[in-house]
Amino acid sequence: MTATQLTLIQIDNYGPWTVTPEPRREMDLQTLQSRLFADLAQFVGSRDGYVFFTRFDNMVAATNGLDRTDHALLQESIGNRYPVTISLGVGVDEVPIEALETATERVQDAGSAQSADRAEVLGGEFHEDSGDGDLRIAHFDVNDATGKYTDRLNEFDTFIEIEQGYASLMRYMREAHGALSFFVGGDNIIAICPDLSVEEYHDAIDHVAEEAGVQLKVGVGRGATAHEAGIGAKHALEDCRYEGTLVEFA
Amino acid sequence: MTATQLTLIQIDNYGPWTVTPEPRREMDLQTLQSRLFADLAQFVGSRDGYVFFTRFDNMVAATNGLDRTDHALLQESIGNRYPVTISLGVGVDEVPIEALETATERVQDAGSAQSADRAEVLGGEFHEDSGDGDLRIAHFDVNDATGKYTDRLNEFDTFIEIEQGYASLMRYMREAHGALSFFVGGDNIIAICPDLSVEEYHDAIDHVAEEAGVQLKVGVGRGATAHEAGIGAKHALEDCRYEGTLVEFA
Amino acid sequence: MTATQLTLIQIDNYGPWTVTPEPRREMDLQTLQSRLFADLAQFVGSRDGYVFFTRFDNMVAATNGLDRTDHALLQESIGNRYPVTISLGVGVDEVPIEALETATERVQDAGSAQSADRAEVLGGEFHEDSGDGDLRIAHFDVNDATGKYTDRLNEFDTFIEIEQGYASLMRYMREAHGALSFFVGGDNIIAICPDLSVEEYHDAIDHVAEEAGVQLKVGVGRGATAHEAGIGAKHALEDCRYEGTLVEFA
Amino acid sequence: MTATQLTLIQIDNYGPWTVTPEPRREMDLQTLQSRLFADLAQFVGSRDGYVFFTRFDNMVAATNGLDRTDHALLQESIGNRYPVTISLGVGVDEVPIEALETATERVQDAGSAQSADRAEVLGGEFHEDSGDGDLRIAHFDVNDATGKYTDRLNEFDTFIEIEQGYASLMRYMREAHGALSFFVGGDNIIAICPDLSVEEYHDAIDHVAEEAGVQLKVGVGRGATAHEAGIGAKHALEDCRYEGTLVEFA
Repeated sequence: MTATQLTLIQIDNYGPWTVTPEPRREMDLQTLQSRLFADLAQFVGSRDGYVFFTRFDNMVAATNGLDRTDHALLQESIGNRYPVTISLGVGVDEVPIEALETATERVQDAGSAQSADRAEVLGGEFHEDSGDGDLRIAHFDVNDATGKYTDRLNEFDTFIEIEQGYASLMRYMREAHGALSFFVGGDNIIAICPDLSVEEYHDAIDHVAEEAGVQLKVGVGRGATAHEAGIGAKHALEDCRYEGTLVEFA
Repeated sequence: MTATQLTLIQIDNYGPWTVTPEPRREMDLQTLQSRLFADLAQFVGSRDGYVFFTRFDNMVAATNGLDRTDHALLQESIGNRYPVTISLGVGVDEVPIEALETATERVQDAGSAQSADRAEVLGGEFHEDSGDGDLRIAHFDVNDATGKYTDRLNEFDTFIEIEQGYASLMRYMREAHGALSFFVGGDNIIAICPDLSVEEYHDAIDHVAEEAGVQLKVGVGRGATAHEAGIGAKHALEDCRYEGTLVEFA
Repeated sequence: MTATQLTLIQIDNYGPWTVTPEPRREMDLQTLQSRLFADLAQFVGSRDGYVFFTRFDNMVAATNGLDRTDHALLQESIGNRYPVTISLGVGVDEVPIEALETATERVQDAGSAQSADRAEVLGGEFHEDSGDGDLRIAHFDVNDATGKYTDRLNEFDTFIEIEQGYASLMRYMREAHGALSFFVGGDNIIAICPDLSVEEYHDAIDHVAEEAGVQLKVGVGRGATAHEAGIGAKHALEDCRYEGTLVEFA
Repeated sequence: MTATQLTLIQIDNYGPWTVTPEPRREMDLQTLQSRLFADLAQFVGSRDGYVFFTRFDNMVAATNGLDRTDHALLQESIGNRYPVTISLGVGVDEVPIEALETATERVQDAGSAQSADRAEVLGGEFHEDSGDGDLRIAHFDVNDATGKYTDRLNEFDTFIEIEQGYASLMRYMREAHGALSFFVGGDNIIAICPDLSVEEYHDAIDHVAEEAGVQLKVGVGRGATAHEAGIGAKHALEDCRYEGTLVEFA
């Protein structure tokens, strides 16, 4: 049984800031957002967690192994180096979507995302002493995306294919299993999952093939942290490549 | 009549690199990708272009105003500072998807995205002396996304809504008009468009409302560069907010 | 009695790389160096260590609290994201210069800084379970630097003054006490010291006033980590400001 | 005859900010400073200028080729992405120190570096249409620094040697010629110079050898921009290496 600790990272009052006093240069906003994400990826990632860019003003992280002190330090450090601050909500649950529900509520309860009075919320519960089986990470990619898309279509039409596959998978995994699937670039999707069987992964892949016409494969790993589970998933996905299979467990 | 110059930015042989000799830590890849994007955003953006992260290993930029020398310098500078290199293809056309088609072909013709022998391609045609009417940028956002989604739903369910809205818009705009729509974070989508009428924008908004149940509004700007057109679009979108309208032109 | 753990960070074979195949653009090298330093500052700093830019191709860090696993992860992460790799040597001693001597030898013994065959050395001994008194940090600044220099002289002549003060202090502290003093920007110098008395700090300040004509003051802190000792030193330096004194201990 | 355009970049009211409301974590300050410098290096460098970190809160740039619009954009972009803002003063003169004097006065005249009321000053004169002979860059390094120092001494003692050589050169070049010399990492010093003869460079090298016991060599380049002059200087320095000479002109 999994016990996933998820953190919602929300930039405080970001929307109003982007247009005050005038709309700011879009490329400066893009730079700010992507560098903030990169800094979170390094902080969380070097503690064996995973963070996903999601909507950039709201990001989701798998943070088993990071306690309240780590979260407070992250918040302080961002506040020291950016013109914006971040709020953090944390939740733990067997089902990822439930953990995120709790995490989000901790932030929402303190005020609106566009409130000038709410800043640097830090709330939630932490999972102490994560164990080997606490996290499941599934790493999906598209079969022969380079040969079928990247080397043949123009980049936007390739992107549409990948995007439709992702939109289909994200909905299916969330509705069927409460799992959270994130596009991470190229043709890769990483999902934070509860315990699922080989058949359940096959069903997800079949669903996307039918609904979006995109052929996925997946490697699945487990571990006490996102990195442990995720690196297992990556190796399992390499196994898929060599064996020509669609689902492999680490 | 527009004359959009688009650049395809493709990381050379990136997929194989990410798993050689072993799969690399995911958060290091995420950091590398998002910082590379940020650097491109600064280089292109400070020359009044726009760049979109798209799939991160393949990015699309609106580069009216940047010539071959600028592109060569960008390529050299990235090669000096990253463990990977980039190829660049450039195309110009009235219809954005056609410009990207040309841009992509310039890179594809030189070899596969996963070829170890192809690096730092720089090919294409450049649009000299961009004029006032050469670019159209449409800046969409979701009506009251904070009140309806961010402050109410958990972040993933909010993300699903935004994502479905985006998936619907990107397909529609590409098929109906050859326009390229990019999610840029939060509830914002920026589209590179040909000349379109107020009615055509209303039709796009209606389509997304019907297909995905997401209510968009849009500001549209024009200019000799993406920044000029884009800042006009932002101001027009502010007008929508104050006027309560769905489509405004700068 | 202090027990300082110091890490030498050396970019492998960097000199030759900067001119291969041709001399690289200087501003790209400056960007690479300063961002590498920033990444080290975040990794080490968020674990309560301090890192100093020194010569940029060789950096020195106070790493009490960071073990071999932390060092290995840092090395791997830099290797994943930069076109260069780093070697790390670690030493522990009561006298900072002795700790650095050991740290440096660990790297030197594996080969030349300009050897193409030596990469990613990781050698040395680690101080387990740092205690409260293990580190002393002294934070110096120049009395009224803004009024006397920055607001009056051109920036280079100001810099010469600060620089001569630093050159004098660094030599004195190293020779008299085996302490390592680093310029950290503005008019600030941070020194990693053994146990020193109030008088010994007064002597150092007097020496710099006489030799370089620059009037320093200093706050001194202690702790199990560089951050603990350093934040104490900063508060003590604030005390100097309010009290008008030259030496304060936290 | 040279015509050097220099820009002083000063972080507004930085000292007070670093201790408000409490002293901030030193490694966050170091990260902020070095990343700000890196961003300036990219902006200025990709327009063929050079920027030097100097004291980090005050930086000096050789900006021939960058006009008022470029400076205003830089200032706006930094203000959009950092928790601090920058003031810019610009001056042009045959003698570098005179250009910096003017540049500094433009900022000083608007208020103190530690004034809460002064922000984003942009003042000065710009050199239009730089010509081939407008800039002289001298690139010094230490003869066999790796063999004599880096591979033999501990890093701090190596640093002391390099630092004393730098302190000696910076003073001499400023006093004798109004030239500005900046340490740029490793064993490298880059100087912005007026027209100097081979003999004058030999005299500078002799002075440092006598005063600090450090043996330098130097390559000198000229151009319409710092990059042009600087890349010439680098090639000339390579010539010194191959020829075993101490002074080479491009």
